[in-house]
Amino acid sequence: MRTISWSEVNGGSIHLLDQTKLPGTIGELVIRDPKELVGAIQRLSVRGAPALGVTGALGVALILRNAEAENWSKESIAKSILELKNARPTAVNLAWGVSQVEPLIEGGSKKVLEKALALADDDANSCREMGRIGADFLVNKLGEKKLRILTHCNTGALASTEWGTALGVVRELHSRGLIEEVFTDETRPLLQGSRLTAWELAQAGIPYRILPDGAAASALFSGAKNGDSANKIGSLSVAVAADQVAVPFLVVAPESTVDRSIDSGDRVEIEFRSDSEVTSFAGVNTAPVGSKTYNPAFDVTPARYITAVITDKRVYRVKEGEAL
Amino acid sequence: MRTISWSEVNGGSIHLLDQTKLPGTIGELVIRDPKELVGAIQRLSVRGAPALGVTGALGVALILRNAEAENWSKESIAKSILELKNARPTAVNLAWGVSQVEPLIEGGSKKVLEKALALADDDANSCREMGRIGADFLVNKLGEKKLRILTHCNTGALASTEWGTALGVVRELHSRGLIEEVFTDETRPLLQGSRLTAWELAQAGIPYRILPDGAAASALFSGAKNGDSANKIGSLSVAVAADQVAVPFLVVAPESTVDRSIDSGDRVEIEFRSDSEVTSFAGVNTAPVGSKTYNPAFDVTPARYITAVITDKRVYRVKEGEAL
Repeated sequence: MRTISWSEVNGGSIHLLDQTKLPGTIGELVIRDPKELVGAIQRLSVRGAPALGVTGALGVALILRNAEAENWSKESIAKSILELKNARPTAVNLAWGVSQVEPLIEGGSKKVLEKALALADDDANSCREMGRIGADFLVNKLGEKKLRILTHCNTGALASTEWGTALGVVRELHSRGLIEEVFTDETRPLLQGSRLTAWELAQAGIPYRILPDGAAASALFSGAKNGDSANKIGSLSVAVAADQVAVPFLVVAPESTVDRSIDSGDRVEIEFRSDSEVTSFAGVNTAPVGSKTYNPAFDVTPARYITAVITDKRVYRVKEGEAL
Repeated sequence: MRTISWSEVNGGSIHLLDQTKLPGTIGELVIRDPKELVGAIQRLSVRGAPALGVTGALGVALILRNAEAENWSKESIAKSILELKNARPTAVNLAWGVSQVEPLIEGGSKKVLEKALALADDDANSCREMGRIGADFLVNKLGEKKLRILTHCNTGALASTEWGTALGVVRELHSRGLIEEVFTDETRPLLQGSRLTAWELAQAGIPYRILPDGAAASALFSGAKNGDSANKIGSLSVAVAADQVAVPFLVVAPESTVDRSIDSGDRVEIEFRSDSEVTSFAGVNTAPVGSKTYNPAFDVTPARYITAVITDKRVYRVKEGEAL
């Protein structure tokens, strides 16, 4: 699957898979007008660092085709290229893609298009290469076994020309029969994980489930002991991060909430809630229909990350080894 | 503010602040019928461990009032109490609240109501006590200065009878003039942080901003160096958790993405995006109108959490000290 391509339809046009419509609609934008391309970039119809690089280079070819057909002045061409370059202020790859073809502008649209298409091929090839190198690395490190992999945001074909960067490693492992399941963080606020990565995985037939970002630490951790705290999902991520930067992490609960009948957090039964809490929002679908989820309502924070438990009676300095 | 109370209206009723309507509507439920109470608990109109305990005890009083007015059989009373106790399977505090008044059932609704109201007062008092103990602990540890505090989910008056547990510590610090700002995680999937905690803080006049759960680690961390990776917000949380459980964390990117011109991740300019991405979803408001947010599009993962960077050329074992 190529998510960005060029066709000679109507004297030359860029085809983009419209990312704003996924996963509900698989729609292709056929863009002939450079101003439309700028709009598509600003609306995030195309996004992702490598994808924006290729779009920038192809965009210059599109500008030159328009210029040649309509006899634009040099100034008009330069203005149009500048608009493209600045479509998103922080997207450095867009400007990089434009800069790759700028030295060829004098040579006309043909030379620029050749270079832009070569950049697209380079990107597709380097994604395959990264996939192989990454898969080899994991197999060397963990052995030849089926893996469960957690991934964040969208790093797939949609973020590049095809295949993907980190998701390219997942695709490569899958092609070797080494993927058990992919955990994809939904990635708030704009849900690139549940809308885009889940869609790519579904298309590729790779088993996956979607999780709230706050559940990632819980999915990675397991096992615990006395002094552990079961709390709303996401608490563990906060506690671990706080620990790493020596910010105090407090649990505040009345003595009556301290359960002295169990000796370890891994004895706590965690409530798993419905898929629909993660796959939709306010009645709007945010993931491919039928997606499985990993949606624990609570997680268990090991005692070693808890600075202190505050009760209505006293302070327990848990991290210093004080028992409850 | 009492979020759960009893009134003698209509022969006795429980008043609940309806949490499902917040922050859009401040609505009170006046519940006279025990079956309605079970429904309110199941819909999460009332939630939070201490709040459910008090609701369970008051619920038994409500059942006995109905039983006395309508001459229920012992079996009907027992059946109604069991329904209340099992309204939510995993909510142990609900069953705990019921069990606190069960020995008094023979004595009639008056005795049960007295005990239930005493439990509500106990909860309110123990929250104030926890607030004082927690605030003292932080002042001792960090000194008498204005604090920025990050909190997860809702642990406020809405989760208890009044004041709150962890949020009670925040309220106590605020009353001492020691809060600079509260960072409240939105807490996906059901957004108790942005819907409930932000509402409580707004009501109390405590400055706050809302952040996606994945941005919590980024808010806690700062500063970095060569080999760091800037990526979609939430990546840092995943990397830190993976590090703690020795799960490999890979960055996969083409050589062209490696920016050798800067020597540290803290030189990366991070794009902050609009408040509305966090405070609404699919056109639906999810936070009090006018809430500020902390909404960075990217975070920086320090090299010490990155097992390896995979490029199209090779593997860089960053955690082992290999430079890019």
